[in-house]
Amino acid sequence: MTHSETLVLDGGAVADRIREGLAPRIARLKERGVVPCLATVLVGDDPASATYVRMKGNACKRLGIASIRVELPAATTTEELVAAIRGLNGDAAVHGILLQHPVPPHIDERAAFEAIAAQKDVDGVTTLGYARTAFGLADFPCCTPAAIMAILAHYELPVSGRHAVVIGRSPILGKPVSAMLLNADATVTTCHSRTADLPAIVRLADIVVAAVGKPKFVRGDWIKPGAVVLDAGYNPGNVGDVDYAACAAHASAITPVPAGVGPVTIATLLKHTVDAAEKFGA
Amino acid sequence: MTHSETLVLDGGAVADRIREGLAPRIARLKERGVVPCLATVLVGDDPASATYVRMKGNACKRLGIASIRVELPAATTTEELVAAIRGLNGDAAVHGILLQHPVPPHIDERAAFEAIAAQKDVDGVTTLGYARTAFGLADFPCCTPAAIMAILAHYELPVSGRHAVVIGRSPILGKPVSAMLLNADATVTTCHSRTADLPAIVRLADIVVAAVGKPKFVRGDWIKPGAVVLDAGYNPGNVGDVDYAACAAHASAITPVPAGVGPVTIATLLKHTVDAAEKFGA
Repeated sequence: MTHSETLVLDGGAVADRIREGLAPRIARLKERGVVPCLATVLVGDDPASATYVRMKGNACKRLGIASIRVELPAATTTEELVAAIRGLNGDAAVHGILLQHPVPPHIDERAAFEAIAAQKDVDGVTTLGYARTAFGLADFPCCTPAAIMAILAHYELPVSGRHAVVIGRSPILGKPVSAMLLNADATVTTCHSRTADLPAIVRLADIVVAAVGKPKFVRGDWIKPGAVVLDAGYNPGNVGDVDYAACAAHASAITPVPAGVGPVTIATLLKHTVDAAEKFGA
Repeated sequence: MTHSETLVLDGGAVADRIREGLAPRIARLKERGVVPCLATVLVGDDPASATYVRMKGNACKRLGIASIRVELPAATTTEELVAAIRGLNGDAAVHGILLQHPVPPHIDERAAFEAIAAQKDVDGVTTLGYARTAFGLADFPCCTPAAIMAILAHYELPVSGRHAVVIGRSPILGKPVSAMLLNADATVTTCHSRTADLPAIVRLADIVVAAVGKPKFVRGDWIKPGAVVLDAGYNPGNVGDVDYAACAAHASAITPVPAGVGPVTIATLLKHTVDAAEKFGA
């Protein structure tokens, strides 16, 4: 049953291509006196979240994008977080705002996301951003879904008419990636914790997107021979949502973890920040 | 292969139940001096659209809901239509606005839909309305999708964990009904004109929603024995998107056309208008 030649979808190569496209655009912006700037907002002291935020800041720095890191204590209230975001909305030097998910459970995350101005919502987390994604109108779709689409496009993997099965239905991953695949003319099935006989559904898929947040959740014998597998998971110990070795044995193409979807997500965030600076920057 | 007892899902009964719930609410509003009012906007002279608008107006009248009919010539520009809608937004006597779909092709329908104030978007056609539907937060989801969910609820047909296949991906039908079924914990597959082997996908479904706009498009041998079939189509000659007799032979439950989804859609529109009058009325 092993697929003869499994293509490893190298996120680093896709991210490099995106960054190469950005470098001259950033240079042109600077000639106009505009330095693209991403503000990240981190609430609490979850070490994984702190690592992601640091990676995003470092990625900005390497490309000549400015970044502002707002760090708020775990006891921050929804109102305080919303006020901090509104402050960034009003700061003309800031072009993009990223609120690191998840926030502590006492905070109303939806209210905090909604506080982000549409022009600065570079991670597509507002309801309006989601709707515009679903209707194919978004300036800034969510970065991880956009990264998955970028990987498919980079490797010229066909989507139209294919059956895509998305495992997960979160507002910033499962739902928007389902919408983007649908708009790219895939037949899309969205699965979740209440799905009956998930393995049977996944076995129908030409394209599998795993967005569950459970290590090695997707098993090798769920993968139809020749399917394309995209792993949006990132769990402790550098492990994705997909049992990589077992799934790679069946897949025609698969993203590794790390170095798959993750770096493309970050490059997409940078791209959206540059897009925002070009479109709305002073 | 014939299913032993096929339940005919009587939209009239569901609509009656909805209207019965509205009557005392309308009476209480009138005691406060508020007469719920729906404004319908019709552009051009498509006879089917004119019929729908007239049916909606008559349904209002029977229940003691006021209605305003705005009729614009086929040559109306997007700007003129948007201006007419803005006028209704500013009219405190109007609680709900329905722009009859479709508008003539030279009009930017999306721009016209977006012009409807969120508080009066009783058919859930704005992008924000869609997103709030997708996130389970909507005051007013689109009426036909909401009608489909109401029929399932009325007849206590289980949705959670079931596989629902939606045929169609329009912004006011296929997409929102997919979202609402997903939020009700169905596993949802959205199909469309580019879907490969549609019959095979539909055969997987426990719940089939037809929203294609093609008469008798869904054939009997596509229906898994015991599936529930909901026909949101309404084509010339009182014909749905489903080959009723052939599909009823396999289905455990099915909506007829007419007298299936249609009357529930209208009752839902009235309900949303009353909701809007209670929530936002003077």
